[in-house]
Amino acid sequence: MNIGIVGLGLIGGSLGLDLRRQGYRVLGLSRRPETCRAAIARGVVDDADVNFTLMAKAKVIFICTPLSAILPTVEQLIPFLAADTVLTDVGSVKTPVVEAITPLWHNFVGGHPMAGKTESGLDAAQANLFLGQPYVITPLATTPVTAVESVEFLVKALGAKLYHCSPQAHDRAVAWISHLPVMVSAALISACMSESNPLVLSLAQHIASSGFRDTSRVGGGNPELGVMMARYNRQELLRTLKSYRQQLDFFIDCIEKEEWGVLEEKLMQTQQARPDFLDS
Amino acid sequence: MNIGIVGLGLIGGSLGLDLRRQGYRVLGLSRRPETCRAAIARGVVDDADVNFTLMAKAKVIFICTPLSAILPTVEQLIPFLAADTVLTDVGSVKTPVVEAITPLWHNFVGGHPMAGKTESGLDAAQANLFLGQPYVITPLATTPVTAVESVEFLVKALGAKLYHCSPQAHDRAVAWISHLPVMVSAALISACMSESNPLVLSLAQHIASSGFRDTSRVGGGNPELGVMMARYNRQELLRTLKSYRQQLDFFIDCIEKEEWGVLEEKLMQTQQARPDFLDS
Repeated sequence: MNIGIVGLGLIGGSLGLDLRRQGYRVLGLSRRPETCRAAIARGVVDDADVNFTLMAKAKVIFICTPLSAILPTVEQLIPFLAADTVLTDVGSVKTPVVEAITPLWHNFVGGHPMAGKTESGLDAAQANLFLGQPYVITPLATTPVTAVESVEFLVKALGAKLYHCSPQAHDRAVAWISHLPVMVSAALISACMSESNPLVLSLAQHIASSGFRDTSRVGGGNPELGVMMARYNRQELLRTLKSYRQQLDFFIDCIEKEEWGVLEEKLMQTQQARPDFLDS
Repeated sequence: MNIGIVGLGLIGGSLGLDLRRQGYRVLGLSRRPETCRAAIARGVVDDADVNFTLMAKAKVIFICTPLSAILPTVEQLIPFLAADTVLTDVGSVKTPVVEAITPLWHNFVGGHPMAGKTESGLDAAQANLFLGQPYVITPLATTPVTAVESVEFLVKALGAKLYHCSPQAHDRAVAWISHLPVMVSAALISACMSESNPLVLSLAQHIASSGFRDTSRVGGGNPELGVMMARYNRQELLRTLKSYRQQLDFFIDCIEKEEWGVLEEKLMQTQQARPDFLDS
């Protein structure tokens, strides 16, 4: 069976490596001829082209472009597809993608592999990137069962942990655990930068250690990615940010009023709750 | 030369291991006889006792108790000391400690080794814990130079990076890079816990990965320690929390108004600023 991959970066490239090892013939598409050549040379794909015609032969196509390119890519792709071709994407926000593409292509299943690393691009692609990692798919009630089953089958073959939910539930969940932490962490760096006494700022910079390193990591990440999260998941992110601000005010209030018992109770709750988010 | 260590936990025990290797005779004090025996058996100290009389022989004494026990410990210790004995502590907040002890003991130098690990207690003590780590000392203008020099000499022998500043500058700097991150991170966990849809909460728990893990780490730590930071460094922590809240509001405002250029500019600043806090 032929599988198409549009966009040969970290995710597209890693999918290619795994799916070829499963015995599928993998066809790649990139805007850049040198990426096509590199993908063939690295064994990420069997064939690759800058031209959409290659995708006519694929039964299932993974759209692995950045979020903002998913819709225009699908619009360009559609004229080349057989009617039963299954499309799926790997975007990190699902509601706007699913709402835009479903009217254009019936056999579309929204997807989000929760795998990643700091590096991006084809050079960072690796086998088993998805192994043991969550992979959320967000079919609608109207999505054809055959399309859903095709995507599920491939996701399971990657060794990923498959989750199903609505696009809205997905976007709300990633707002909590992925997009909110970026803003919370970036605001921490911004706040530290605002220290007006240069001696204190310099001392803080020199004595910062693992606590600061970890809490500030995602806030010091790729700015474009941060903006994209906020743009595409604006409503859910704002909802979580406002809930976060209430919690922050609770902590400020406790400390202002010296309610140490209340603060300790709260910190006991957070200590107890954290492992529930990390034992997946 | 005899060096005293009062409180044989992670910090006291690790100091003992390093100072004995430097050739000092290390005398330990713990409230628990079994800790004294264990410290001798592990080679952390040359001798140890539950009785303060042992400290009469020490030239320099490190007070390595929890913050709240520093003042009562020094009060109990003073009747046993020779007038030229140098006292220093390892508490993570300096203003209240220095203000309370300086009137009681002239030869006192506040100190704070910025070394630690998740485990605590004597069993976690290790050689070279301070090697390459910041060690801040906070002498006052009135602190005898000989006392400051004694502590400096020992700190340098540990291989630590020595910093000097006022107790106030220290407390402001640690509020930014250590105490504020705890509250910011705990509020993140609290906010996630507040999700009212159980399906979304469960999905969030299952798909949370390294971004959430890192940002939530210090907020899921020891509750007693968190309360102690807030109690002893209340004023500086509140100051940083309020500045943080302003920054958070800036992010919320950008996203609400869809000012994506402004948000990207801000995230570029945080990306650029973060390494300045981590290259010490």
